[in-house]
Amino acid sequence: MRKIILYIAQSLDGYIAKSDGDVSWLEQIPNPDQSDYGYRAFYDTIDTTLMGRKTFDQICSFDIPFPYADKTNYVFTHHPNHGTKEPVNFVSKNPLNLINNLKKTKGKNIWLVGGSQLNTFFLKHQLIDALRLFIMPVVLGSGIPLFHSLKQPASFELIDQQRFSSGVVELIYQLKKS
Amino acid sequence: MRKIILYIAQSLDGYIAKSDGDVSWLEQIPNPDQSDYGYRAFYDTIDTTLMGRKTFDQICSFDIPFPYADKTNYVFTHHPNHGTKEPVNFVSKNPLNLINNLKKTKGKNIWLVGGSQLNTFFLKHQLIDALRLFIMPVVLGSGIPLFHSLKQPASFELIDQQRFSSGVVELIYQLKKS
Repeated sequence: MRKIILYIAQSLDGYIAKSDGDVSWLEQIPNPDQSDYGYRAFYDTIDTTLMGRKTFDQICSFDIPFPYADKTNYVFTHHPNHGTKEPVNFVSKNPLNLINNLKKTKGKNIWLVGGSQLNTFFLKHQLIDALRLFIMPVVLGSGIPLFHSLKQPASFELIDQQRFSSGVVELIYQLKKS
Repeated sequence: MRKIILYIAQSLDGYIAKSDGDVSWLEQIPNPDQSDYGYRAFYDTIDTTLMGRKTFDQICSFDIPFPYADKTNYVFTHHPNHGTKEPVNFVSKNPLNLINNLKKTKGKNIWLVGGSQLNTFFLKHQLIDALRLFIMPVVLGSGIPLFHSLKQPASFELIDQQRFSSGVVELIYQLKKS
């Protein structure tokens, strides 16, 4: 069955973005070998992206064409009439029906892009099949966390890890489903 | 010169304790090989501990003898008359004089035990020589962060990393001093 994969970078103190959503600090980490951190290989294994509306707006604010135009993209929003020319589908109803349908349908894996609110929703519903977490060698001290508050801790199993010459470390986890 | 080492565990989403200071979740992570995560070897390389008052109170709340009684221990507090029978020295003045004296004095390395406020003070003053960060395979979703807010991000260099059979990963960093 196709998997939902949260593939995401965070500061070493657990923030995926600065408090205002800014992620430009990610680009400022020296990357002398110009590693793509396995992004292209990963991108080829997915055919669908899922993201929250704030993450979508952040991506649209970059001065580049929408980067996932060749995929099926779902943006979760509380505002059903969110207008855009980008190749995305807005979802304002409870996402669970869509997710269940996606998981039943044949296809490649599904990338959960973020952000924090959507990550938390997926974790609460035990819908994250794999977490590929890139720990960047920088402390932000504040910002948007990987997840928001949970009723109880969630345990993961470490599947693999990888170190890059830039000092970035990738940790690959699988959720221990209860 | 002796080094100040922040040797500390955090959840994979960046919390060193639950919001009320509770760290019992650390003990609940299965550790079938009963690894001590290099603790004993590390402990032998230090002769001094530094901790904040809340961290000290947390340690005293455990139903065990004070665990660092064979070291020189400094507890940083805003309450100069904090009474205790434990083998610690309370420091209520600006810690910088003490730190500078300690660093000039011959001795083993110095363990910065935490917590968040003291970690942040040391980071702001570029006094953390090494960060040994243990990433536990659990998401807390909220809690006490490794550091509090900073005026600007702090960059680190990854020196080494190590994976344990329990799924814990140790990341060893050096602060890039500006």
